[in-house]
Amino acid sequence: MARKLLKSARERRRSGMILLDGAHLISSYAENFDLTGAVILVNGASHTTPESNEIVASLPAQARVLDVPGALFDDISPVDTPTGIIALVTRPAVSNSDDRERFCLALDGVQYPGNLGSVLRTAAAMRVDAVLLSSSCADPWSPKCLRGGMGAQFVLPVTEQVDLLETLKEFEGTRLATSSHSGCALSQARLSAPAIVMIGGEGAGLSTELLASADTTVCIPMSKGIESLNVGAAAAMICYERFRQFPA
Amino acid sequence: MARKLLKSARERRRSGMILLDGAHLISSYAENFDLTGAVILVNGASHTTPESNEIVASLPAQARVLDVPGALFDDISPVDTPTGIIALVTRPAVSNSDDRERFCLALDGVQYPGNLGSVLRTAAAMRVDAVLLSSSCADPWSPKCLRGGMGAQFVLPVTEQVDLLETLKEFEGTRLATSSHSGCALSQARLSAPAIVMIGGEGAGLSTELLASADTTVCIPMSKGIESLNVGAAAAMICYERFRQFPA
Repeated sequence: MARKLLKSARERRRSGMILLDGAHLISSYAENFDLTGAVILVNGASHTTPESNEIVASLPAQARVLDVPGALFDDISPVDTPTGIIALVTRPAVSNSDDRERFCLALDGVQYPGNLGSVLRTAAAMRVDAVLLSSSCADPWSPKCLRGGMGAQFVLPVTEQVDLLETLKEFEGTRLATSSHSGCALSQARLSAPAIVMIGGEGAGLSTELLASADTTVCIPMSKGIESLNVGAAAAMICYERFRQFPA
Repeated sequence: MARKLLKSARERRRSGMILLDGAHLISSYAENFDLTGAVILVNGASHTTPESNEIVASLPAQARVLDVPGALFDDISPVDTPTGIIALVTRPAVSNSDDRERFCLALDGVQYPGNLGSVLRTAAAMRVDAVLLSSSCADPWSPKCLRGGMGAQFVLPVTEQVDLLETLKEFEGTRLATSSHSGCALSQARLSAPAIVMIGGEGAGLSTELLASADTTVCIPMSKGIESLNVGAAAAMICYERFRQFPA
C-alpha cells in the first residue's frame, strides 16, 4: 500500500491516505491533526534519530509502529537519502470556508510537484487564505509536493480539481490574472481582499479564457532575453507584494 | 565523457566543458556564445523536433554532430523525458567585472541544484548584476541547475567558490544579510547599489560570521508556524523589492 501511495494520485484519492517521509513532515502533521489510525514505518537497520524517537514515543495508543528491514524501507521511501521514518496517515479534509473575505491564489497547469510545493509553502508563510488548483495541476499530496511544501498543506486550505472559470464567474471580488509580458505592474495593482490571483504553470501560462475572465492583468517587469520566471518565484513576488500592501 | 560531465562537478571544472540537454538550453547558449568546437548528440531513434533540426542546420562547420542510438541517448540524458538533443560545449568564462557599482546576491549553502537554478533564473530576469557562490553551494553548471536556470547562467555573471567573508570585508558598498526571524523588514531596507545581499541555504541559513559581517539584517515577515521560505522564494522577494525600489 505504501508503494501505491507513493506513485499514484488516484490511490491517494481512493484510500484517503497519504505518505509522509521524515520527522519534520510527520511533526508538522501531528501539530495539526490526530495520529490515531496512523501507521508508522521505522527503518530497523539504521540508527534512529532523536526526532524519530520523539514521534514514536508520543504516538496515541491506536497508532501502529512497524519495524521495516533497511532495504525494504529504502525501497518504500520517496527520498534519495531516507530519514528512517515514514507515516501513512489520513489525508486532511479541506475546510469548506467562505471565499468572500479572502485573498486566494488560483493555479493552472502547475505540473511539477516541486514547484507546486514551493508555491504552497510561500502561500502559507505569507498568509494567503486559500489556494485553488485546476485539474491540470500536480497532486498536492504526492511525496515530492509534500516535501516542497514543508507542512504548508497542513495549515493552508488547498482545493483540488477546481473549475476555475466557473469559480471566477461566481466570485464576488477582484479577479487578477498574471502575465509575463503585459498588464499593469504588480507593484501598481491593488491586491486587497476579496481577490483571486491566477497564476499559470510552466511553459504555457494562463489560457486565453482565464485571461479574458480577469478584471485586471498584472505583470512582473523583467529583463529582456529572459522569457519568464519560475512559477514559484512569480508566486513569491505576488505574495510578497500583497503582504507589503496589507501587513497583517 | 558525456556521462562524466553529467555526474561530476570536478570533471566539469577539469575539462571546462558542460552538458546542455534540450533545444531550449542549447539555443540560449548559442545566442550568447559560439558553438565552434561543440559536440551535438542527437537521438537517432526518435523523431527530431523542428527546434532540434534548426539547431543542427545552423551549426558552424567545426561543430560535430553524432547520431546516438536511442537507449544510449536516454542513458546519457540527464532528464526523465529526453528531448532528443544534447550538446557538449565550453563552459562560459565569468567576466571579471567591477563590483563597485553593482547589486549582487551572495549565496551560502544553497545545496539543491533546482533551488540554485531557480535563484539564478530570477536574478537574471530581475537584472541582478552578479551572483557570488560560496564553496558550500551546488555546482551552477550541473544539468539540474542548468535546467532550473533556463539559460540564466549564460547571461548572468556567476562566480563560484567565493570566500564570502573576505569579499565582504573588501566590499565598498552596503552588506545586507537576510534572516527569517530578525532584522528590518525587507520593504523598509534601502536596496541601492552598490550592495551585496547574502542569502543562506536550506536549513542552516547564514553563518554567525556572515551575519556579523553585515551592515544591516533584513527580514521577510512571515506567518507564525511556518519556519522559513524556500531559498528561491526568498531570493524572488528580494529581487522584486530591489526592482520595485529601482526600476530600470
